[in-house]
Amino acid sequence: MRSRRLVVADVPVPPPGPGDVLVRTLACGICGSDLHALKHAEQFVQTARRGGNAFVMDLDRDVVMGHEFCAEIVEHGPETTRRLPVGARVCSRPTLMRPSGPQSIGYSNDNPGGYGEYMRLSEALLLAVPNGLATEHAALTEPMAVGVHAVAKARLDPDDAPLVIGCGPVGLAVIAALRLAGARPIVAADFSRRRRELAVTLGADVVVDPAETTPWQSWREAAVYRDPARAPKLAPWIAGPAVRPAVVFECVGVPGVLDQVMAAAPRSTRIVVVGVCMEPDTIHPLLGIGKELNLQFVLGYTPEEFAATLRHIADGAIPTAPLITGTVGIDGVADAFVALGSPERHAKILVKP
Amino acid sequence: MRSRRLVVADVPVPPPGPGDVLVRTLACGICGSDLHALKHAEQFVQTARRGGNAFVMDLDRDVVMGHEFCAEIVEHGPETTRRLPVGARVCSRPTLMRPSGPQSIGYSNDNPGGYGEYMRLSEALLLAVPNGLATEHAALTEPMAVGVHAVAKARLDPDDAPLVIGCGPVGLAVIAALRLAGARPIVAADFSRRRRELAVTLGADVVVDPAETTPWQSWREAAVYRDPARAPKLAPWIAGPAVRPAVVFECVGVPGVLDQVMAAAPRSTRIVVVGVCMEPDTIHPLLGIGKELNLQFVLGYTPEEFAATLRHIADGAIPTAPLITGTVGIDGVADAFVALGSPERHAKILVKP
Repeated sequence: MRSRRLVVADVPVPPPGPGDVLVRTLACGICGSDLHALKHAEQFVQTARRGGNAFVMDLDRDVVMGHEFCAEIVEHGPETTRRLPVGARVCSRPTLMRPSGPQSIGYSNDNPGGYGEYMRLSEALLLAVPNGLATEHAALTEPMAVGVHAVAKARLDPDDAPLVIGCGPVGLAVIAALRLAGARPIVAADFSRRRRELAVTLGADVVVDPAETTPWQSWREAAVYRDPARAPKLAPWIAGPAVRPAVVFECVGVPGVLDQVMAAAPRSTRIVVVGVCMEPDTIHPLLGIGKELNLQFVLGYTPEEFAATLRHIADGAIPTAPLITGTVGIDGVADAFVALGSPERHAKILVKP
Repeated sequence: MRSRRLVVADVPVPPPGPGDVLVRTLACGICGSDLHALKHAEQFVQTARRGGNAFVMDLDRDVVMGHEFCAEIVEHGPETTRRLPVGARVCSRPTLMRPSGPQSIGYSNDNPGGYGEYMRLSEALLLAVPNGLATEHAALTEPMAVGVHAVAKARLDPDDAPLVIGCGPVGLAVIAALRLAGARPIVAADFSRRRRELAVTLGADVVVDPAETTPWQSWREAAVYRDPARAPKLAPWIAGPAVRPAVVFECVGVPGVLDQVMAAAPRSTRIVVVGVCMEPDTIHPLLGIGKELNLQFVLGYTPEEFAATLRHIADGAIPTAPLITGTVGIDGVADAFVALGSPERHAKILVKP
C-alpha cells in the first residue's frame, strides 16, 4: 500500500533482529480488514490512534499488508534457539515481540506482512505446520482463530441459540467454531447464495436469505425449546412457544448493520461484534436500553486459541478447503481485492508471492 | 404533554379497573427521561416502536407523565383484596398489570402518571411506605432502584474499579448503589461543582471535573492495586503499576458521550449504559473492537430490586435527602423542566399535585 493504492514494488528484505527468523511467505490469505484498511485508511489510522490502539501506521510510507500466512524459515537471526530448522513450514500470530512491546505485522510500516516475499517473525511465536497439512489450509489458521475466539468470548450457555449475520470469511469462521463448540442449531444469514452454501458446508443448520425473510423469523423457529422441561414458564400474555436466549454474531462490519440487529433483537440478546467496521456508525442507544442488550466487541485470539485452531485444522475438526476460492501471485493482489467485492465468486483468496 | 408542550388541564379521573386502585399522587419526581421525552418525543416514539418496545404513545393525544411517585389510596377497584386500606401511602413500579400484559404508567395515553392528581395502580404491585419514612423520600424509590439495578447488571467482581460518568440523578443513584454494594473506590465525574458535591454526599470517594483533568487520570490513580498480591503480573513493556479492571457507568445519555468513553477506556473495560439517550448516536466500532470493550445497556429494575430499594431508603442505607432540591405544584412543572437544565441548582424536583 503506497499512497493509498496497492502497487507491486521492490522493497528491502527486512533484517531479522534478535529473536527473529526471516521467512519466505508460502501463502497468505486476503482479509476483509485489509480491504477496509485500504478503502478507509485515514479513518482506520485516526480511530486507532484515538483509541490508543497498536495499529498506527504512517500512510505516507509503504505498508506491506497480509497477516494470515503460512511461511518457511529462510534464516535464523541472532539470539534464536533454532528449534525449527531452515525450510520448516510455520504459522505465527502476526505479531513481533519486541522489548518495547508487541508490534503488528502487516499493519505497520516496519514489519512487512505476507503479501510480500519475505517477513520476519518472532521465533518464540512460531508453530510448526503438522506433516500432511497443506500449506493453503495452514494459512487459514489466523482467520479461523478469529471465529474460535469470538465464540469463546460469547461464553455460550447450553441453552443459547446462535444467529450469525453475514457469511463472509469471518461469519464462516464463527460457524465452524460454533460447530466445534457443539452449539446447535446454527442459523446464519447472507444475501449471497454462494455464501449460504458455504455456511451449510461449514456447519450451519439453517441458512436465511434476508432478501426473502428476516433472519429473526427463521431463528425464532429454530430456537424453540424442544424439551419443554428446559423452557422457562412464560407470562400468560406472551404468545408461546418459549424461545432460547439469542446470541448474535455480527460478521458484516459495515455501518448500519449493528443498529438493524439492535432493532430486531429480542430482549436481553447478546451481540458479539466480530465484523470490523472502520467507519463511524450510527446506533440508537434507546434500542439497546429498552431491551437491555449486551454488545461484546471482539478482536483477534489468545495464543492458546491460535495454536488450538491450527491443531483443529490439521485434525479436520475445522474445515478449511471449501473457503479457498482462488489463488494469486503478487501481481494479482490488487485485482483480488476488487474480486473479493463479489460474494458470489469468492470467499478467501490466497496470495502466493 | 399536549401537542409536544406541557400544559395544565383538566382530564378525566382514570376509572380503576379490575385489580386496580385509584390513588392520589402525594409526590412525584421529575425524571431526566421525561425532559428527553418532551424534547425528542417523535424520536422516542419512533425508536421505541422500531425496537418493539412498550413505550408507544400517540403524540396527538394527551400524555400525563410522571413515573417516580409516592401516592395514597383513594378507592379500591373491583376484584381487589383491599390488603392496604384507603389512605395508606404506597409506592409502585410505574406499571399496570393487564391480562394483555404490563402497560407503562406515565409514558402512555391511557395510564396517567404522577404529574396528575390521580392515577390508577395495580394493587398487586403496591408496596406500603414504612411508618416514619417521609413521602418525599419514598418517591425516590424509583430513580434509586435504577442505580441498584445498573450495579447489579454490572456483576462487579471484588477487583473491579468503578467510574461514574455524569452525576445527575441517575449517576447519583448509581453512586449510592455502588456504596451499598461495597465497591470502592468510587470515582465520579461531572462538570458541575454542585453535582460533584452531591456525588461526595452520596458516597463517591474521588470526584473529577472533566474541564480540569480527564476522569481516567483520576480513575487510574484510584484504581491501582493496593495489595500487590492481588495485582496481575504485567508484561515488562507495560509501565506499571497494575490497575484494576474498569467498569464505567455512562450516566449522561446525550449523543457523543458513549464514543468518548469508548475512546478513552482501557482494554476490556465494561461500560454500563444507564443514561437514556433518545437521539441517534455515533460510535466508532473500531474503538470497541480494538480494546474488546463490552457494552451493557440497562433499563429499570426487577420487582425485587424495587422493593429492596424502598427498604434501603427507609433504613437510611440509601441516602435520598440531599437529592431533593425543589418542590413544585402542578402549575410549576413546566418551569421545573426548564430549571432542571441548570445542574448547579437542581438535582431532583418533586411535583406535589
